[in-house]
This record gives sequence, structure tokens and C-alpha cells, in this order.
Amino acid sequence: MTVQIRHLATTQSDFEATFKQVLHWSAETDTAIEDRVAAILADVRLRGDEAVLEYTARFDGLSVPGMAALELGQSELKAAFDSLPAEQRTALESAARRVRSYHERQKQACGLSWAYRDEDGTLLGQKVTPLDRVGIYVPGGKAAYPSSVLMNAIPAHVAGVEEIIMVVPTPRGEKNPLVLAAAYVAGVSRAFTIGGAQAVAALAYGTRTVPKVDKITGPGNAYVASAKRRVFGEVGIDMIAGPSEILVLADGTTPPDWVAMDLFSQAEHDELAQSILLCPDAAYITRVQEAIDRLLPTMPRAEIIRASLEGRGALIHTRSMDEACAISNRIAPEHLEVSSSEPNKWEPLLKHAGAIFLGAYTSESLGDYCAGPNHVLPTSGTARFSSPLGVYDFQKRSSLIEVSEAGAQALGKTAAVLAYGEGLQAHARAAELRLKDGGQ
Amino acid sequence: MTVQIRHLATTQSDFEATFKQVLHWSAETDTAIEDRVAAILADVRLRGDEAVLEYTARFDGLSVPGMAALELGQSELKAAFDSLPAEQRTALESAARRVRSYHERQKQACGLSWAYRDEDGTLLGQKVTPLDRVGIYVPGGKAAYPSSVLMNAIPAHVAGVEEIIMVVPTPRGEKNPLVLAAAYVAGVSRAFTIGGAQAVAALAYGTRTVPKVDKITGPGNAYVASAKRRVFGEVGIDMIAGPSEILVLADGTTPPDWVAMDLFSQAEHDELAQSILLCPDAAYITRVQEAIDRLLPTMPRAEIIRASLEGRGALIHTRSMDEACAISNRIAPEHLEVSSSEPNKWEPLLKHAGAIFLGAYTSESLGDYCAGPNHVLPTSGTARFSSPLGVYDFQKRSSLIEVSEAGAQALGKTAAVLAYGEGLQAHARAAELRLKDGGQ
Repeated sequence: MTVQIRHLATTQSDFEATFKQVLHWSAETDTAIEDRVAAILADVRLRGDEAVLEYTARFDGLSVPGMAALELGQSELKAAFDSLPAEQRTALESAARRVRSYHERQKQACGLSWAYRDEDGTLLGQKVTPLDRVGIYVPGGKAAYPSSVLMNAIPAHVAGVEEIIMVVPTPRGEKNPLVLAAAYVAGVSRAFTIGGAQAVAALAYGTRTVPKVDKITGPGNAYVASAKRRVFGEVGIDMIAGPSEILVLADGTTPPDWVAMDLFSQAEHDELAQSILLCPDAAYITRVQEAIDRLLPTMPRAEIIRASLEGRGALIHTRSMDEACAISNRIAPEHLEVSSSEPNKWEPLLKHAGAIFLGAYTSESLGDYCAGPNHVLPTSGTARFSSPLGVYDFQKRSSLIEVSEAGAQALGKTAAVLAYGEGLQAHARAAELRLKDGGQ
Repeated sequence: MTVQIRHLATTQSDFEATFKQVLHWSAETDTAIEDRVAAILADVRLRGDEAVLEYTARFDGLSVPGMAALELGQSELKAAFDSLPAEQRTALESAARRVRSYHERQKQACGLSWAYRDEDGTLLGQKVTPLDRVGIYVPGGKAAYPSSVLMNAIPAHVAGVEEIIMVVPTPRGEKNPLVLAAAYVAGVSRAFTIGGAQAVAALAYGTRTVPKVDKITGPGNAYVASAKRRVFGEVGIDMIAGPSEILVLADGTTPPDWVAMDLFSQAEHDELAQSILLCPDAAYITRVQEAIDRLLPTMPRAEIIRASLEGRGALIHTRSMDEACAISNRIAPEHLEVSSSEPNKWEPLLKHAGAIFLGAYTSESLGDYCAGPNHVLPTSGTARFSSPLGVYDFQKRSSLIEVSEAGAQALGKTAAVLAYGEGLQAHARAAELRLKDGGQ
């Protein structure tokens, strides 16, 4: 049975309309979920640990006598790591090493990052400091990804965050040893087996047992996303992630099986994931379709892949690689593969993308796990204005100003004129009091 | 009539409880406002210009035949600038020059910011690009601040943003010439006299006349804040600002009048603004109180200042400057004045603050207008996890990965082990297809 993935050509008259339809996705805001989340947040804020224990019993089927039973000790994390086959231990450590190495290059040295003095001796500068304490949400159940633990915890660690608190739901007490092992490898400070809106609330407000954090990162279901959106401001959050996407720009030189498998690797995440191919070579598109049809039956997650490709996928024939690059900029994809024999010719044309994978050997899955860059990337076109999760998300800046006596004379006059113009007389007087004549 | 500002001492037994009460502030989410904003957003999304015209007529008392009448041309901006007294023109230009100069130091060069090759020849890097188009919200009416136009537009300009779209409501058609002049000086691309949730919607979704932007920054009232929170994800936004705050750490060496006026300059913004003094010298606190009582009657905005100081202000006697610094870190103030003869002794102890003003001559108001750093700063303790508005808010990063054939061999094995561990077989197969033996 062939896969009924949509074929489009940029030359067709209804391309614009159809293309918009393909891209359309909007986070449904389910009022029922919103209301339940608001109630859970308010309850945890009020009753703390007691509320967390009740929701964990109700939603995760995990009843325990007290919060101590919901904390994973360091020895348990280490035991999980030790219990893994050598192959998995090596893979986790190798991935962690590469991710750390990449993120160390993103780090801004803490302390004064730069400063200069103007002609009056006034000093102007910028200081960088790490966040004190962050929370990492790790999904449990079917989408339990140890790689996400590394991708969230390592940048925080590199940034100099002192305490990294992980939460991961363990429905009916089932723990995922790879997730626990990843927490060990990544250097998580404390870990709790709680999840959902109640875990987000515990991190955002703090309870007697769970420390209040400054920022919460990490993916989750609709309840978690809604809770993060609501606590934004009380704490920092990373982006609210939509379905995952891949865009492959192909010039027809990569083996079609490789491209087909790369499209699958996105589609297998979830029925709403989106895989799109842009290619100026019609014959090559046909070969990719053949590869898709031939390879799909070999995939354990064939049904999810089929649903995703048929529902949201597209193979798009473009007039040229240049046009493909222009369309890519409109999509601003999360993952962008430049599957070309001359990827560095096209890379400078690509303005908006979370991560750019250059050349046939760079499968997106290598980036997902171990190449080094982060796999938490802006989805749904948000790469137009946002960046991969990085060390910069766990550092912040403060401006520094030290006005000299001479500087206060010149600046004071300017500030006073503008402050009076805005009707803010105390601002003006504060500047004038520093003038030698007291502004008289 | 003395100002009944709260006096506290860290030695008093109920200090912790009282201190928490003083700091307590939470953005009231008014359901009626939320619902009206949601309806306006949906309507502008659906009906575009037509809806914008209707809401502008209804809320701003400004009825015009079409959108063209709501656009300010470049010549009108320039005319506003030319109409100003020379003193104001010079002040605006001088402030803009200093703000630009500071922000140029924040800029990351666009293009490849760094890259390295690992031992297998795999390239890993990071690319920086500006946002294409941003929207700046400028409040109209009583809080029309030309300085905000400079502080929002200049960092975007320095970042390399090509189009900067300003919106500013002009109730009953009243335009503020200083705001228009600031738009001219800052190099705004287009400007519309629209405001409220309808302006945020027009920028976020685009209409026939108003171009869709990638990010919206700038302060606004409760409707604007609610609208920005709702369109977050569709576009980027800056922080949702709470009331403004100043914290003064004083060692007792600054003239008390200066400190009193600095406290006023925050308090005059709004009754909810917060001014706090931390000082280890009880006699000095008494002198500041005397200065407050003596100077308040001279202030045109005395009533607002009194309400703010009596409602939310505090003069806190600490055991030492060290203790004052520790308390400051708990507050994470928006504006932090270190009014001391040795400010550089204390600065390294200060971890969380939007902007730090060092020494007696550095009044906060100099920073508000013209010292150089941005005056859009994290409020309500959010300096724990966020930064001043800056050039970095108008640039974003993309990861770059180019895996060599040799690199694909080593990375492919690691990725496949982890992908199988997560049950994502297409990820594993995509990596394995790049192995020389095809993963067989």
C-alpha cells in the first residue's frame, strides 16, 4: 500500500493556498485543560506537599506516605547507571561529553563581560551571572527520553547553575533506568518522581520539600505546557514546544533511502509531526516516494509514520534550490537538512532554522543524540525569533553604570530635559541635584 | 505632614514576615479583561483592518475613513522632530547616540559566530541572524515616554532588524510630538496610531495594511499585557512588566536629599511602584526620612509619590552592608543603586538585578534616559532569570552541524544505541544507513 503523502509543485496555480494549509498548525487551547491546570496550580501553591502527594496518587497511580518516597537519591541514580549494559553506558557518556563540549563554547564568562569609560570617565558595562536554581521537566511514560535529560541539564550545568532539580513522573512507580542514568551522567542535583501540572507548580512556587526554582525547561504534554505558560513570570520558562518538524532540502545527490528514513525519523515521533521535502528534481522525488513505500513496512512504528506523513507531510517540487531556500526561510523549520553535495553553497541563504544539518552524512538523528548541539529547538516557525536551548538560557545579564562627577554634569542636563518633557519632575530633580550648581 | 513610610529593621523578630508582605505583588489576572482581549484578538485575526478601524474608533475616539489615515509618514515624524525646541532635539540625539554606542557592544556579529571541527572532521558551529521585522508598542496618553521609543527601537536597529514597526495610540487624535520625534531619531520604519489589544493583534497576525512582525516589545496597560501574553508563540515577546522598583543600598555617605529624590523618582511613576532603602546606619535613615518629608511638598506629583511610598515603600535598617547585599539578592530589583563611597567593594556581591547604579553620582534617572544601557528591565524579581532588553533580544541563533563520513561512523553507533533505547527505530536506522556496513 503506497503512502499517500501530498505531492506539490511550486509551479501549480494553487500552490500558495495549499502550502499554507500544509503548514497550518495551532496549539488548541482546550478550556477544560486550562481550568483544571489553573485549579491544580492554585492548590499546590496553597497546600504544597500535601497537594502534590494527592495529585500524584490520583494521576500517576502512585500512593506514598510522604514526599521522601518521591525523591530519587543520588545512589539510586548511580545504581540505575551501573545497571545498564556497557554499550548504553558508553553511549550516554560519549553523548554527554560531546554535548558538554559544544555548550562550553556558548558560555559567556561570568562576572564583568565588558565595560568601557566614556570621555567623562563614566563607566558602562555588562555583568553576566548564572541562574541560582533551575527545574527540568522530563516526561515519563511512552515519551521518556534520556537524551532530553542531557540536553536540558548539561547547558544549565555549563552555565554555572548550582542546583538542577529534575522532575519525572513514574506512573504506577515504573522508573525508566535510562532516564535515571542520564540524570546521573548529567549531574542533576536532586530528582523527584512527580509530573504534570503539580510538578510544574511545585517547582514554580516551592513546597516544603521541593525547592522553588528560577526557571523551568523541558517538554511535556498539554497539561505541562499549559502550566508552564501560566507560571511564566513567576519563573522563567523555555519555549512551549509544538509538534516536531523536519525540512529536507535535497539536490538529488543523497541516496533516496537516507532521505526517506530521515523523513520517517521525524514522523515516528507522533502523528502531528511534520516531514517536508523540497527538491528541484522531479525524478528524485519519485525515487524518494518509492523508498518511502518500500521501507515503511520494515518500521516498527509504521502506523504513526504513515499517519504523520499522510496527514502533515509533503514532497514539494521546486523550480530551483534557490527557491527551495526561500521557501525554507518562510517555514523557519525546527530541523533543516541540506542534503546536497554542496551544502555550504546553500547555507548562507538560510536565515531561519533551529538547527541546520549540512550534507548527506548529517542525519538529523545524529544531532538528536550526540553530535553536540542541543536538540531542544524552536518549533512551528518560532525559529523566526528564537534560538535552540543553550547556555545563554541559564545566564542573565545586569547593566553596570558608574557615572563620574564630570559625567553627571553632562548627562544630568540631557536627562533633565527629557524627564521634564515626560512630566517626570522627580527624575529631573534627581539628575539636577548632582549638578555642581544643583540645577539652580 | 510626614510621609508614613514603613520603617523596618532586620533585627526585629517579625522581619521575615513583614518583609515578605512588603515585597508581595502579583499581577491580578482580571477575567473580564482576559475575555475581552481574547475576543479582540480573534476579531482582528479574522477581519483585519476593518476590525482595527472599529476598535480604534471605539476605544481611542478616533474615527477615520481608512487605515491610511492611521499611518504616520516619515515626513510627519521628521516634522515633529523639527518642531521641537533645540534643547529637546539635542537631548534626544545625545541620548540616542549614547544608547546606540552601548548597545553596539552587545551585538554578536551576524553569520557564523564560531565553529570547530572534531577529530573526525565533523564541523559544529553556531550561526547568528537578526529577526526580520519587529513591532514596538509605545503607550499613548499619560504615560507617553519618548525615551521608551529609543530604548526599544535602537537595540533592534543595532541587531540588524530591517523593519521596525511602531504602534502608538493617539486618543482623540492627540499626538505627542516628542514620541514622534523619538521615532524619527531612532529610525523607526513605519508607524501607526493604533493601540491596545487591537494593535498587538495587528502586529502578531498582520492585516492588509499592518505587516505581521516576528516579535513585539514595549510596555502597555493591562489589555496590552494580556494581549502580548496571548500572542506569545505566534510571535516573540519581551517580558510582561510589573510595577517599576528601585532598591537603594546606602552606606550613609551620599547626601540624604539625593537618596530621597531617587526614591521619589521611582515612586512618581505610579502608586504601585516600589522604593526601598537598605542601610546599616540608623541615623542616616532618619536623615533620609527628614529629606523625604521636606522635599515631598515641592514635587508636582506629590500625591502619587506619597501613595507609593506609604503603600509599598520601606526604609530598612540592616546589620551591615553585607547583609544589605544578601537581602538585595533576594529581592532581585529592577533598579539597584549602590549609593556608597566604595561601590566596587559591594558590586561583586550583587548577583541579581536588572541594572546596577554605582556610586552617589549615578542617579537612576541618568540611566533611564541617556547613560547608555537599556531602561527596559526585568521587574518583580524576574532579574533572577532575565536580562535587560538588549540587542540579543533581536538576534537568534541556529546550530550548524556537518558530519564527515568518518564522523558518521562513530556518531552513528552512539546515536543508534540511544535511539533503540528510546524505542525510536527510524532514528536509529537513519544513523545506521550512514555506516559503511549499513548497520548490518
